[in-house]
Amino acid sequence: MTGSVESNIVREKLAQAVEILDEQDVDLWLLLARESDTMGDPSMPLVVGTSVTWESAFLISRAGDHVAIVGTGDVENVKQTGAWDQVLGYVEGIGAVLRDEIAKRDPNAIALNYSKDDNIADGLSHGMYLLLCDILDDTPYRERLVEAGAIPRKVRGRKSPTELARIRQAVATTERIWESTQRYIKPGVSEQDISSFMHGELEERRLGSSWDWKYCPTVTVGPNSPIGHVGPTEIAVELGQLVSIDFGVNEDEYSSDMQRTYYLLGPDETEPPAEVQRHFAIIDEAIQSAAKLIKPGVKGWEVDDVARKIFEREGLEEWRFALGHQMGRACHDGGTVLGPRWERYGDRPYGEVEKDEVYTLEIGVSVPGYGRVNLEEDIVITDDGCEFLAPPQRELIALRR
Amino acid sequence: MTGSVESNIVREKLAQAVEILDEQDVDLWLLLARESDTMGDPSMPLVVGTSVTWESAFLISRAGDHVAIVGTGDVENVKQTGAWDQVLGYVEGIGAVLRDEIAKRDPNAIALNYSKDDNIADGLSHGMYLLLCDILDDTPYRERLVEAGAIPRKVRGRKSPTELARIRQAVATTERIWESTQRYIKPGVSEQDISSFMHGELEERRLGSSWDWKYCPTVTVGPNSPIGHVGPTEIAVELGQLVSIDFGVNEDEYSSDMQRTYYLLGPDETEPPAEVQRHFAIIDEAIQSAAKLIKPGVKGWEVDDVARKIFEREGLEEWRFALGHQMGRACHDGGTVLGPRWERYGDRPYGEVEKDEVYTLEIGVSVPGYGRVNLEEDIVITDDGCEFLAPPQRELIALRR
Repeated sequence: MTGSVESNIVREKLAQAVEILDEQDVDLWLLLARESDTMGDPSMPLVVGTSVTWESAFLISRAGDHVAIVGTGDVENVKQTGAWDQVLGYVEGIGAVLRDEIAKRDPNAIALNYSKDDNIADGLSHGMYLLLCDILDDTPYRERLVEAGAIPRKVRGRKSPTELARIRQAVATTERIWESTQRYIKPGVSEQDISSFMHGELEERRLGSSWDWKYCPTVTVGPNSPIGHVGPTEIAVELGQLVSIDFGVNEDEYSSDMQRTYYLLGPDETEPPAEVQRHFAIIDEAIQSAAKLIKPGVKGWEVDDVARKIFEREGLEEWRFALGHQMGRACHDGGTVLGPRWERYGDRPYGEVEKDEVYTLEIGVSVPGYGRVNLEEDIVITDDGCEFLAPPQRELIALRR
Repeated sequence: MTGSVESNIVREKLAQAVEILDEQDVDLWLLLARESDTMGDPSMPLVVGTSVTWESAFLISRAGDHVAIVGTGDVENVKQTGAWDQVLGYVEGIGAVLRDEIAKRDPNAIALNYSKDDNIADGLSHGMYLLLCDILDDTPYRERLVEAGAIPRKVRGRKSPTELARIRQAVATTERIWESTQRYIKPGVSEQDISSFMHGELEERRLGSSWDWKYCPTVTVGPNSPIGHVGPTEIAVELGQLVSIDFGVNEDEYSSDMQRTYYLLGPDETEPPAEVQRHFAIIDEAIQSAAKLIKPGVKGWEVDDVARKIFEREGLEEWRFALGHQMGRACHDGGTVLGPRWERYGDRPYGEVEKDEVYTLEIGVSVPGYGRVNLEEDIVITDDGCEFLAPPQRELIALRR
């Protein structure tokens, strides 16, 4: 069976979940799912390890006696994960079995995956929430439903040993692809050419992209390229311009997410123009300062702030995104964000950084007439700081063509 | 840009949506999304045509003036779909812009994608629902939120010309793979071997499976194989046994879903045993009777019932699934189901069949000592009946090895 390595992760994450339920003083974490290939709770691959078709309930208990309730056709499928010993099948409806299994455990609270602020902790559909309310109507448990919040965030954030090994592998592969891409960049190749080249590198290795294939990589050539999550255009590389690329691979279900910036030396140049170098140095300083500050217990917004203040000091326009996000099974892995206290980040910048979380550190700036300087590094949080998962780009890569 | 064919579908579906809003007397259909690569409303690929990262709102208006509100980093991405002319970007938060755009339209109702019964119409997370309630608090629109129900179901169910062409292509490819798989089946090859062979056929064509790769195909060899959605085992093919396979491809984002059954003739047999043939004939009769009955206006449960009654008449144990589900972008495409009026199907068996919907017709039964007879056909609803998308399997395929 192919399930064995996946089972390791599910077992590691279920063990973490029990610890976290205890920390949070919650007896039961309840995941609901159906047709999860089409739209699945982001916690499913971590703590369930397979998709399901019919309405399914996964009861993860602080006492460790987890039970899965699934349509009969999914029973073998869930058993084969090797992580769920107790799998109950139903034929006509899930309601009665689910009520019984909850009542047996008489939990102090039933934590559900919903969150206004964090998509990763918001895996329960509104319809399934209403369905659960119907099922628990006239029971004392209807009133014990609570927002799981910290539970899915922490289960996802604290990378297990198997998860960290996979992320390191995805980053290592990305490093190989940066090397070949750097050799490929030359005058006349378009953003679309660079994107196709990098897609070829992925296809050769039978790997997926870290986010939407259409705009992973995001390639920004020269000063006239549109900014943001955007597919590659026909704009072609010219000497005397910047090329920046945002790219990540998905390898064994885990992601990388990095940005690199290249400068194509003009015929008379021996190094990139001072203005370009000045912008690069500011971004480098901002990323390095954030990396020096980050450690367990620091709040997300504080890490963003140290970098943002350097931009301010230099009179640069502030960048419109968070400094960093968590990365793991999803490229944007939810939980604490290293971001400003803006409405769109909700409560996430207020979260505290924890050991074994993996973050990006990323900033971009336009240099008028040249293009974008964009950098993004991947780090893992250690006992007292962080470790870069690949050597960070500390200097602008000047290409002579 | 690669977006052009996808844009056709989005334009076709947006035009259908306007018609359906009119039929339902609803002014506004509102889709909310964020990090939609990780967990996205199933309606997104149909009417939006791209993924988004930050909180996003897609207002589809009965008047036809649709507007997308997205984080600035997603603006170009949504514009590139070619289907959304009006794309508004925000930096700090979506709330104010969304309130304004809704107020401008002053809709009689705002339809949201949630449903207790149907995952395809249940793309709104509970957290985003609560967030929207906060945003619309103190406006008259908070009270005008309604369940979209029929809107996403009908938009998804009524296949457009481009969609039908893609489904036909996926079915045609599946036919090719049945042919090669039939040649591959012989004594000694295991369920895992057959699965690997079919995965190879997909990889060679650079295609995905219609559902979870792990159990697509689902291969059932002989009488001792576990039933349901289950990965292939080491059980090997023997003469005098049945081999049944449930399989579908995903080609250009559209699915097929078929089942075929083979019998391996024993050394002294010239045809499959009478008992096996009897079971096959009953399933064939049940599927053909359902196909004769189905047409626009018939209710889902009525189609299931005609097949189920034939099983009853013959004294066979009833099969534990619906006779058929819709098929399209997702293998299980939601909406009306051809199923019994069981709790787990909610209101879906009560839906009326419509023209241009695509359904499966599928039944399976165990023949003690031999294995499973499983058949599944794909049909499209016409003005006054249905058309099989591939010739149905009308006879047990007897293999002489």
